[in-house]
Amino acid sequence: MEPVKCPIERTVNLIGNKWSLMIVRDFSMNDGPLRFNQLLRSLRGISSKTLSARLKQLTEYGIIEKKVVSTTPVMIHYSLTEKGKDLTRIMDSMAEWGLKWNVGESG
Amino acid sequence: MEPVKCPIERTVNLIGNKWSLMIVRDFSMNDGPLRFNQLLRSLRGISSKTLSARLKQLTEYGIIEKKVVSTTPVMIHYSLTEKGKDLTRIMDSMAEWGLKWNVGESG
Repeated sequence: MEPVKCPIERTVNLIGNKWSLMIVRDFSMNDGPLRFNQLLRSLRGISSKTLSARLKQLTEYGIIEKKVVSTTPVMIHYSLTEKGKDLTRIMDSMAEWGLKWNVGESG
Repeated sequence: MEPVKCPIERTVNLIGNKWSLMIVRDFSMNDGPLRFNQLLRSLRGISSKTLSARLKQLTEYGIIEKKVVSTTPVMIHYSLTEKGKDLTRIMDSMAEWGLKWNVGESG
């Protein structure tokens, strides 16, 4: 496979899909880590299977990290890595555009 | 359907997929308008059917506009609207992130 030279395309290949972007949005808007069920509740319309697959993918890409907290029962926390936190500027520019152009069902 | 309040989600609903982002990238990197076949050649791996559907969708969203140039044969040009040009900041922040974190198959 030919290497991807365009940095925009490289970014799009990692996070250019609805649910990855929405998962990163959720982390950007929360200070602390999030649990699977918190994300599942917040992301309207995502299935448990898709959330699981996306979290695995984002972890492999080094965008989020998984932490096992040894409570009883064990808790699994997800949070952004430094690389993931650096996506904030993309989130900010998306928020600005969405506000300026007032897009979406609600007009 | 409940209206979408989050401006990031509204943006993601319009352009949060690989091909819409790649089409906007192509326009952002060209000064002038582009024709269907130019986009088809540039976007590695997109099908004619998908490109057609995405262009229609982006036109409906007011992000690109279609112009029929009355040459023989007639030529159809696509270009970014003001709303579409305003996506440049999102593209820029994606390029920055891609450069900084050096993501993609090429390492």
